[in-house]
Amino acid sequence: MSSSLEQLKGRLTDVTSLRSAIAVLDWDQQTYMPSGGAHARATTVESLSRLAHEIFTADETRQLLDKAKTEVDPTTDEGALVRVVGRDVDLATKFPSEFVARKTKLAAIAHEDWVKARANNDFKGFEATLTEMFEIAKQEAEYLGYTDHIYDALLDQYEEGATAADCVKMFEALKAGQVPLVKAIQAAKPIDDSALYGEWDAAKQSQFTEFIAKEVGYDFNRGRQDVAPHPFCTTFGIGDVRITTRYKSYIGSAIFGTLHESGHAMYEQGSPADWEGSMLAGGVSLGIHESQSRFWENIVGRSLPFWNRYLPKLQETFPALNGIGVEDFYRQINKVETSFIRVEADELTYNLHVLVRFEIECDILTGKLAVKDLPEAWNAKYTEYLGVTPKTDAEGCLQDVHWSMGSIGYFPTYSMGNVLSYQIWNALKKDIPGAEEGFGRGEFQQVQDWLIEKIYRHGRKFSPKDLVVHATGKPMDPTDYIDGLNAKYRAIYGL
Amino acid sequence: MSSSLEQLKGRLTDVTSLRSAIAVLDWDQQTYMPSGGAHARATTVESLSRLAHEIFTADETRQLLDKAKTEVDPTTDEGALVRVVGRDVDLATKFPSEFVARKTKLAAIAHEDWVKARANNDFKGFEATLTEMFEIAKQEAEYLGYTDHIYDALLDQYEEGATAADCVKMFEALKAGQVPLVKAIQAAKPIDDSALYGEWDAAKQSQFTEFIAKEVGYDFNRGRQDVAPHPFCTTFGIGDVRITTRYKSYIGSAIFGTLHESGHAMYEQGSPADWEGSMLAGGVSLGIHESQSRFWENIVGRSLPFWNRYLPKLQETFPALNGIGVEDFYRQINKVETSFIRVEADELTYNLHVLVRFEIECDILTGKLAVKDLPEAWNAKYTEYLGVTPKTDAEGCLQDVHWSMGSIGYFPTYSMGNVLSYQIWNALKKDIPGAEEGFGRGEFQQVQDWLIEKIYRHGRKFSPKDLVVHATGKPMDPTDYIDGLNAKYRAIYGL
Repeated sequence: MSSSLEQLKGRLTDVTSLRSAIAVLDWDQQTYMPSGGAHARATTVESLSRLAHEIFTADETRQLLDKAKTEVDPTTDEGALVRVVGRDVDLATKFPSEFVARKTKLAAIAHEDWVKARANNDFKGFEATLTEMFEIAKQEAEYLGYTDHIYDALLDQYEEGATAADCVKMFEALKAGQVPLVKAIQAAKPIDDSALYGEWDAAKQSQFTEFIAKEVGYDFNRGRQDVAPHPFCTTFGIGDVRITTRYKSYIGSAIFGTLHESGHAMYEQGSPADWEGSMLAGGVSLGIHESQSRFWENIVGRSLPFWNRYLPKLQETFPALNGIGVEDFYRQINKVETSFIRVEADELTYNLHVLVRFEIECDILTGKLAVKDLPEAWNAKYTEYLGVTPKTDAEGCLQDVHWSMGSIGYFPTYSMGNVLSYQIWNALKKDIPGAEEGFGRGEFQQVQDWLIEKIYRHGRKFSPKDLVVHATGKPMDPTDYIDGLNAKYRAIYGL
Repeated sequence: MSSSLEQLKGRLTDVTSLRSAIAVLDWDQQTYMPSGGAHARATTVESLSRLAHEIFTADETRQLLDKAKTEVDPTTDEGALVRVVGRDVDLATKFPSEFVARKTKLAAIAHEDWVKARANNDFKGFEATLTEMFEIAKQEAEYLGYTDHIYDALLDQYEEGATAADCVKMFEALKAGQVPLVKAIQAAKPIDDSALYGEWDAAKQSQFTEFIAKEVGYDFNRGRQDVAPHPFCTTFGIGDVRITTRYKSYIGSAIFGTLHESGHAMYEQGSPADWEGSMLAGGVSLGIHESQSRFWENIVGRSLPFWNRYLPKLQETFPALNGIGVEDFYRQINKVETSFIRVEADELTYNLHVLVRFEIECDILTGKLAVKDLPEAWNAKYTEYLGVTPKTDAEGCLQDVHWSMGSIGYFPTYSMGNVLSYQIWNALKKDIPGAEEGFGRGEFQQVQDWLIEKIYRHGRKFSPKDLVVHATGKPMDPTDYIDGLNAKYRAIYGL
């Protein structure tokens, strides 16, 4: 008779297998599936999702979990597995199935409504659905439970242990540190990056982006890059972590998209090989995940030493870029340009977009703001924080898909990722002096090893908060980030 | 309360979904998966296969089937569904799980042993495993049950209702009709097809093969073509039926590979759209399936009218082919060259390879031949039927992967497909006089419509034998095939 833990692992293997299959189905849908496949694919994914949920939340799973808890040492990997899976099962069983069905149904309708409303710049046409979606989010928070703030319950699903209070503290610091910097840059001489726009051969973009992804350490024996409308990273196993990119008229679109997704991918590839199939493998939270994508995208990929090394290769691939000096290229890829649109935002203004959403989510959830007044509140905040006022709701409060999907409460993890990327970078530099200069010699191995040692190899073993302290010696603190941004952008803009 | 039939359909949807997911996983493995993904992929497929088997063979499924049988009119689609699924469940539950486990384990070992034995030309190293595999096949036949011949039980899994006696009758006719023709061609002046070998740009081969696949009617809105080491067709749903091809130094490799797989694909795409997700959709048997791949590959793709129309386009794509007249091209793509190797065989000699395997399988299963004497028997039959004697076992009885996988009893379906392709063609020509000349004007729609009407739209509704009579007015009869081959090849070789 095998132990309860072994029996539990057997059950979890089926859940992991079903989830892995769903990930493959989704990857295929976004990369290669012909349009005629959509109907059958929806049915297939629905069946597999339901089967995975049934097995995962079955009484047998919980009974085995309870027994396994008594068999394992909580400080070991197996103890961590029981803890992590216990939390996942708790989250998966908090909601009555009627509620899940209601949310799923509303999300389908809301998505349709949102697409139409955005296309027609018709907020009124979306207002009722969005109001219901926020009601659902409130209900969701009640099912999940919370002590201090309703937002805590929602955020905790994406970032274990993170609270609205953490966010408020973080955003206060970011507002104080970033808004003046953004305003100063808006008043400075703009950077002309028009040379980075053109018609770039897709095959050559593919070749160059795969080259730099390999250079920084993304293992193509355990991954691959394809093309999809929206870049993403997806994990089928530790040995198969894939990314996508896209080819646009802005040459940086593919380059930084690839580096961003490579960061996510290297985190996933960095779990211990013998955790293949274990629910301990992979990234621990959205915030920590984003810290890694942002690290490789911005701190490595938008650094001067990196392009000292790789600009010649880029120019060899695209001779139209010949004649741009590396200092100019560096300035151009770091151009700050305030936009109404979050997904087009640069490194510096991105958090201000997130801040707007966080504050509005809190205000609606706590009843301070009615959904009908959202457009006005949205525009006021954009004017205050970013210095720009959306001319329409389509480029204002209707721009994001997330609320229509019922994803309320996770935007702050993007900003946490930004903040943590610099905090981790400063900790890394203490252990590896000269790491940045190393980029100019193509030296990434030591950096990669440090990240594996401090973060990647732990998978989901520690809570995100514990992991941050473990890796950087302190809890999340926006100081490193604000100082880093100020130093970088004041130099670039001569402020 | 929904009917038993509706409840049954609900259960079957999960099975279909799991199988569809497994098909996607397999497609991905053969086309895009990085090597590092193999380990997790094996686990994923194992889980999904087991879950599908469990749901499909559960007592609830059988109970619902029994109840549904009383609810449906057997002459309707729903009646057919209950019959077809009932047969599938019967087949899936004939084997005790220990037996399935034993066969799966042996197959894994046997595959390894076979790879080594073929590489080292070491039949002795494979003899014991192969002996056990044939013992397993005998046991399998006993579980399945049979009246006349042990082979009937095995063959019926692939071709419902087909028997060893059917095969003997077919092969006797093929032997009498084909062996003299092959010998006459071997004595005639050989055709020089060296112009068809070269270095052909892969992107252009892809473009040309997709073009002709579209021309003949393969719907790329409900399919796509990728590259894989071995060409195959796979179905994720009626709206998503994919093919693969490969690019070799022989220009015909991709062209005829694509047409062959397009034939399989058009059959699968031809199920009624509202059967999406139903187990009635798809091909009814391996033999009927092969008749369609062979039809589009050989009868259409290796015809003179077809190349009257498409050779100029091919020559435009590959100017190295300029200067070959269409009559010469037609002769070259129909060159007969006896080989030791089945997968390299031409249209004419292919069945003789199959015949050797069928006779040997029967002899071993009935105890007339011991596995240890296989090499000798193999070489004697090749000498007799094909006029060539393999110099080694690697190019003789060790060439095929199938027996190592435990696939014993399905080789004859290849020959049935060949025979049926001409029988169907003759029936079609009666209804559509001038169909062949139409190929020269790019007219395939009427042919496609006839095949949909007579074969494709019925999916698995009728038994293969009934379908053949329905489509052609008579049971399988090799006369059309032998007459067709004789007419075609005697003209080509001037005999």
